[in-house]
Amino acid sequence: MPSTCIVPSGHSVFSPIRFTSSSAFPSSQRLKPRIQTKTVPSSLRSPSRVGLVVRAAVSMEKETPESERPPTFLRESDGHDYAASSSSSVRARFEKMIREVQDSLCSALEAVDGGAKFKEDVWSRPGGGGGISRVLQDGAVFEKAGVNVSVVYGVMPPEAYRAAKAAPADQKPGPVPFFAAGISSVLHPKNPFAPTVHFNYRYFETDAPKDAPGAPRQWWFGGGTDLTPSYIFEEDVKHFHSIQKRACDKFDPTFYPRFKKWCDDYFYIKHRNERRGLGGIFFDDLNDYDQEMLLSFATECANSVIPAYIPIVEKRKDTAFTDQHKAWQQLRRGRYIEFNLVYDRGTTFGLKTGGRIESILVSLPLTARWEYDHKPEEGSEEWKLLDACINPKEWI
Amino acid sequence: MPSTCIVPSGHSVFSPIRFTSSSAFPSSQRLKPRIQTKTVPSSLRSPSRVGLVVRAAVSMEKETPESERPPTFLRESDGHDYAASSSSSVRARFEKMIREVQDSLCSALEAVDGGAKFKEDVWSRPGGGGGISRVLQDGAVFEKAGVNVSVVYGVMPPEAYRAAKAAPADQKPGPVPFFAAGISSVLHPKNPFAPTVHFNYRYFETDAPKDAPGAPRQWWFGGGTDLTPSYIFEEDVKHFHSIQKRACDKFDPTFYPRFKKWCDDYFYIKHRNERRGLGGIFFDDLNDYDQEMLLSFATECANSVIPAYIPIVEKRKDTAFTDQHKAWQQLRRGRYIEFNLVYDRGTTFGLKTGGRIESILVSLPLTARWEYDHKPEEGSEEWKLLDACINPKEWI
Repeated sequence: MPSTCIVPSGHSVFSPIRFTSSSAFPSSQRLKPRIQTKTVPSSLRSPSRVGLVVRAAVSMEKETPESERPPTFLRESDGHDYAASSSSSVRARFEKMIREVQDSLCSALEAVDGGAKFKEDVWSRPGGGGGISRVLQDGAVFEKAGVNVSVVYGVMPPEAYRAAKAAPADQKPGPVPFFAAGISSVLHPKNPFAPTVHFNYRYFETDAPKDAPGAPRQWWFGGGTDLTPSYIFEEDVKHFHSIQKRACDKFDPTFYPRFKKWCDDYFYIKHRNERRGLGGIFFDDLNDYDQEMLLSFATECANSVIPAYIPIVEKRKDTAFTDQHKAWQQLRRGRYIEFNLVYDRGTTFGLKTGGRIESILVSLPLTARWEYDHKPEEGSEEWKLLDACINPKEWI
Repeated sequence: MPSTCIVPSGHSVFSPIRFTSSSAFPSSQRLKPRIQTKTVPSSLRSPSRVGLVVRAAVSMEKETPESERPPTFLRESDGHDYAASSSSSVRARFEKMIREVQDSLCSALEAVDGGAKFKEDVWSRPGGGGGISRVLQDGAVFEKAGVNVSVVYGVMPPEAYRAAKAAPADQKPGPVPFFAAGISSVLHPKNPFAPTVHFNYRYFETDAPKDAPGAPRQWWFGGGTDLTPSYIFEEDVKHFHSIQKRACDKFDPTFYPRFKKWCDDYFYIKHRNERRGLGGIFFDDLNDYDQEMLLSFATECANSVIPAYIPIVEKRKDTAFTDQHKAWQQLRRGRYIEFNLVYDRGTTFGLKTGGRIESILVSLPLTARWEYDHKPEEGSEEWKLLDACINPKEWI
């Protein structure tokens, strides 16, 4: 199993690594099963054993709800510094960054919505780590908006540790501790002319395995921001991609073209041969650059979400629409769900490993629709969107 | 890979075996991609390689639309007989049975709906095999009703053929031809007090591999009928289960308890630790009884759908309901989608092997809903339903 299994990319509000080893149910769940079904029933002979393999791959304590946000979710040993100066660890500065982005984005979204407020759930784990989930549901502008951060300490089996190969063959390395932190968000506006946006930025570290002297410590960054409209306004899509390109270009001129294509490839609904939306940027396992440079790059990308998205939703949130426009948006929402439940690595990993379901599935829209054999009329606005999902375009 | 991969169970209107080897798009699709993406993009590093393995597992010709229903989809060599007398092959009698059930059920459903008519799509493959998909959408009573039959000839690789093990170790058997036929249906009524029902009955045969003399011909039956209400009316659930038990008891007193439990185990949404609904019966790979007996049993089960379900929908279709009742139904529809897209073997197999998407996903309701952290009030009618999904009950 490649290490990419451990920090899945995509969507799911970073919950992929918020799983527990025992049960899919949060402790606050009132409906307790009389019999805990922890094993797959014998008659459930799935063609895939991946879920079982993955479930066995990581052990982690159960999360507990907290009444208030701690200054940090880091362990003492991580040398955290609430001020997180440039001399602090990358872990500390990454956590500070994602929490600041969560705060600024939630404020911006509440301002756009003009009334509704985010509901916050804070959770922690006894040995360190935790997260803040914020959800705004059924607002004036947003159908559902989730903005989550999490900091997770876990242990992966040596097979999952990609550097373990470097260890001498006669030495069996033990389990490898890892650290992962990330922000993930999906924003679904009500107006069918206002696009959905998703972004997720994450940082991952493993400790060097103690009993495999040759194996190094590993780290990497992953993330992306992508736009999913139901109708194309070229100026909106160009604006969105321009902001992504600008963030990329500050660091490396190859980033935007590479990560734009990676995004088109990743958000691919294979069974329909179409993308979920009109893309943006996406990258994973990024560690072949200077670590400080990549921290700055991830920060730049995360800080670009507000300028990339808020002007678009401001412009489209009050556009008049018909029942037909809404129905098309609902059909596209259905595609969004198909991608997330069938393909998204974060979602599928989280579901199979017993993640906090409400955090994982907050990415799903409030409502969606599936019509049999729906085909938009050739040349229509709906057809143009579908065409752009089938044939990804260069927007700038 | 066990042979159960080849004829997946569950749902998906039997389309799991209606896949093509080349593309997920029906030939009638107007939006042609400029570049056919047939391989998984290199950046799409899923933790699961199952899709790829499965895709490679079976080769099959592309389906073509037909303007009218042929008397049979069987190949000449199957010795088919339009009258399908008791001397005809099991294949021929099974096809006749499922087509009769499709006809009688669609008539019954149109009568209940009182206006809407099924839309029919007929398709065939050049080398034999084909199917009839019927969908009624947005009727007076039914939100979406799909009733599909299919007859498929295909070839599976020797590794997928469970009897191949019987061949001498020094002999490498070649690809194994198989035959599969089935009926599958999902009926979603509009009224939140009228339950969804699903059923699927299928018959599967392999030829003996020509170059593995020791390996026998295989056959088996699979199927089931299960009920998914949003609200519990005990008399309805008891009626439904009683009809299943009656059908089972005609053949073997152990069938109902075994297949009832199998159903509860199969329709299990693991990440929520709850069942999709209130069960019924489910079985797969059934071949350890007399073949004629099992053909009669599958026939009895399929013929029990109308008496099990139609009286319930007749009774509940006009019950007055509130927006709250409807919203709860929509949330349960969301669960239905979660099960089908994440767990259902038929659906996931079909999606990953390039099945006809519209046939596979006709099982999804027209509309659905996901609310963040929704918990029904303890003791409420919604809570009772959820409790019964978490803790399966004996209804009779």
